[in-house]
Amino acid sequence: MTPDEFRRHGAELIEFIARYYETLSAGGGERRVLSEAEPGDVFNAVPPEAPEVGEDFAHVISEIDRVVMPGITHWQSPGFFGYFPASATFPAILGELLSAGLGVQGMLWQTSPACTELETRMLDWMGRAIGLPEAFLSEGDGGGVIQGTASEAALVAMVAARQRALDDRGVEETDRAALNGRLVAYASEQAHSSIVKAAMVCGIGRSNVRLVGTDGNLAMDAERLRAQVEEDARAGLIPFFVCATLGTTSTGAIDPLAEIVRIVRPTPSGGGGWVHVDGAYAGAALVCPEHRGMIEGVELADSFNFNPHKWLLVNFDCSCLWVRDRAALVNALSITPEYLRNTQSDAKAVIDYRDWQVPLGRRFRAMKLWFVMRHYGLEGLRAHIREHVRLAELFESWVRADDRFEMVAPRSLSLVCFRLKAGDGATRSLLEKVNATGEVFVTHTVIPFAGGGGEPVYAIRFAVGAVTVTEADVARAWEIITAHAT
Amino acid sequence: MTPDEFRRHGAELIEFIARYYETLSAGGGERRVLSEAEPGDVFNAVPPEAPEVGEDFAHVISEIDRVVMPGITHWQSPGFFGYFPASATFPAILGELLSAGLGVQGMLWQTSPACTELETRMLDWMGRAIGLPEAFLSEGDGGGVIQGTASEAALVAMVAARQRALDDRGVEETDRAALNGRLVAYASEQAHSSIVKAAMVCGIGRSNVRLVGTDGNLAMDAERLRAQVEEDARAGLIPFFVCATLGTTSTGAIDPLAEIVRIVRPTPSGGGGWVHVDGAYAGAALVCPEHRGMIEGVELADSFNFNPHKWLLVNFDCSCLWVRDRAALVNALSITPEYLRNTQSDAKAVIDYRDWQVPLGRRFRAMKLWFVMRHYGLEGLRAHIREHVRLAELFESWVRADDRFEMVAPRSLSLVCFRLKAGDGATRSLLEKVNATGEVFVTHTVIPFAGGGGEPVYAIRFAVGAVTVTEADVARAWEIITAHAT
Repeated sequence: MTPDEFRRHGAELIEFIARYYETLSAGGGERRVLSEAEPGDVFNAVPPEAPEVGEDFAHVISEIDRVVMPGITHWQSPGFFGYFPASATFPAILGELLSAGLGVQGMLWQTSPACTELETRMLDWMGRAIGLPEAFLSEGDGGGVIQGTASEAALVAMVAARQRALDDRGVEETDRAALNGRLVAYASEQAHSSIVKAAMVCGIGRSNVRLVGTDGNLAMDAERLRAQVEEDARAGLIPFFVCATLGTTSTGAIDPLAEIVRIVRPTPSGGGGWVHVDGAYAGAALVCPEHRGMIEGVELADSFNFNPHKWLLVNFDCSCLWVRDRAALVNALSITPEYLRNTQSDAKAVIDYRDWQVPLGRRFRAMKLWFVMRHYGLEGLRAHIREHVRLAELFESWVRADDRFEMVAPRSLSLVCFRLKAGDGATRSLLEKVNATGEVFVTHTVIPFAGGGGEPVYAIRFAVGAVTVTEADVARAWEIITAHAT
Repeated sequence: MTPDEFRRHGAELIEFIARYYETLSAGGGERRVLSEAEPGDVFNAVPPEAPEVGEDFAHVISEIDRVVMPGITHWQSPGFFGYFPASATFPAILGELLSAGLGVQGMLWQTSPACTELETRMLDWMGRAIGLPEAFLSEGDGGGVIQGTASEAALVAMVAARQRALDDRGVEETDRAALNGRLVAYASEQAHSSIVKAAMVCGIGRSNVRLVGTDGNLAMDAERLRAQVEEDARAGLIPFFVCATLGTTSTGAIDPLAEIVRIVRPTPSGGGGWVHVDGAYAGAALVCPEHRGMIEGVELADSFNFNPHKWLLVNFDCSCLWVRDRAALVNALSITPEYLRNTQSDAKAVIDYRDWQVPLGRRFRAMKLWFVMRHYGLEGLRAHIREHVRLAELFESWVRADDRFEMVAPRSLSLVCFRLKAGDGATRSLLEKVNATGEVFVTHTVIPFAGGGGEPVYAIRFAVGAVTVTEADVARAWEIITAHAT
């Protein structure tokens, strides 16, 4: 493909995307949010073998509508209220385009200094924007890095925590692997599955993760954490890692970080456990000072993570991880073969982000952050969050005003969890009917319900977050929900 | 940003990228391949805080040249012969653009069936294109998945191998973590650092990786592997994972896969060890039947990985991993919280790729493969590989014809490793002078040299791989090298 052909096909795809958003915003009417594809539909729309001879690219583009679009669930639709949002915005899409166009590999500083240094600066920008202490920024001993997902952030934090715990205890390299059986990690019962998955991957295993009970708001019960940590330490185990969740996936519950850090640092066993803060969803709200109560105590945490790709206008993937002591991360993940050595790295004059993550290679993801933060400005980011919180408050008020419904957990930021008082069967059936309309898409969870004596109940999660959503969309969603509730 | 503003700025960025490639191809002359930025240059070109108020996007675009470009090392330049290539092509860039534009999240089949099913089909396409046995394709018990990097592929293969080894031995969940101390992994001394890193991350640790000695071609010595596996098994350890490298990073050496699989399956301890094939670089050459000798025996391997984002025209990231038994991967990585449950997944009617990887979320990366394979066709992919191999052969012939130089390892596909007979100091100095011209960029390695009695020597790696490279570029590189050698 020549540059001129690229100009032409590029224009076609830019037009395709622009029109896509125009149709999505047209009352959501033109497209069903949830794909109606059946298993195998897309697979079978594509022949079993690659073409022997190259095809006309205009023809390939023309097939997107036939092959791909019927299998798309429209995350960017104003009718999408499922899971957490995966916000895409035009500036972010353009950042991704430019990053792909430059085609640089940011594994080392030397392999494109801009890829590393713009990232360091953007993580400082974002860290300041959300009110992180200076200790987490690059000019001290800390710093930030873009990971692909919160799962990867949790994994590298856990691996760094293990390294530090064993370093502190002077354990020989050859004795370390067997000690995985004595390392214990903690998270709330409501924490994201990625914490248990990180334990499975890093080798301490599921059975060494303690899922600590929660309070009536489904946030971690700090006293139960304290008791469990003390019990494990007395049993000769090593409490080495605690994940505090800001905004659980089920209900957006906020763990009491200030209490958690006091319990964990130092642990009864002497060494300080590592406190990782998983703010994957709720961290975005920290751009607004009125939501910063949830990070009280963060100055004693070791790592902090949130995903701009969820609710802060940057398209997937962009998961920001900050650490207070970057050496702890690098000690756990660095390994330098000869073919990667170079003057600047040897002199330790630069950051090599490959030592902050599992992969070696990396894309130029900072470009998206640069485009998004400059386009919106901090004012724009705050306005975005506040509008979604306002819409969720409005939705909550409608739920509370309707006798057929009840909240099953406190609203958290832009997430409302509710159910029909008629019970699980009725609520599940309502969700199915609502999603079947195609106009809106909501997802569910099952959680202990204070109003039901702590028994698990089926609840609908209504997560406001699509970039294009308006009050009219939320009102229409409520109209559909109430229409099917009767 | 409105759709119309996106159309305008999209056109500006498409034009920026098209012109970028035009300048790169203009004899490489307009840009220095290796960035001349000093540490801090880019960081300091960006203010310390994000703007309070959003900026004009045209102004942001206008700053790319000032802020970003001086810090770019031009991987797509026809003068780039360093590391391994990171090929970007126009069809792949457009695939990335469309993927970002659709903004879907492919963690579950349900969250966009097209994202999952096009990926399954593309991995079948690519698997057939490189001659993998049907057992690795989706219609049997195997299948393929796109990982971000070969490092992540190695990690999930190692985690799956551990799970299978402990399942086969009936080890209780609570006893597993401590057993990390008895698990042993194997790779050649020349294997990529990602294998040791995977061991560090997954908790078996560096000291449980055996780096097996190599033969005169720097490929794994299968007899030494056999002896080591037997010794470890006699010592009560569990040989559970072997990585066979096709195309080592230093010299492109090809491990003897057919012998390795015979040694490892079954292991002397009874259970079958997991054989992972790391063809990150060389796997691309398998699109040409004449290079398929290197995968003799692959039908007995458990996992196979190569990176189209290196040498097969797909921009980073796109690392293809195939497994012969997808259940082994899913058993090791699956965990299903309530909020991710859905009808199709519960019925096991579909693939949920989150269970094939560490992250939960995932981008629609199959789009790039679909665009690239249709645009080039299999003929085009083969022609691309053959031309680069031809250019490397030509370069090799020039090295061999010049008395001042010697090859330090056999040429492997498009990679030539050579040095000045005058020794390490002279060779290092030559590399520095060549890179200082700005016209070409080469990297180095240090390897045991058969011609020097197995002593480590410093060598220049010349990796042909830029999509835009021509015979004239290779000839010009040789001209520069020889000019500075005198």
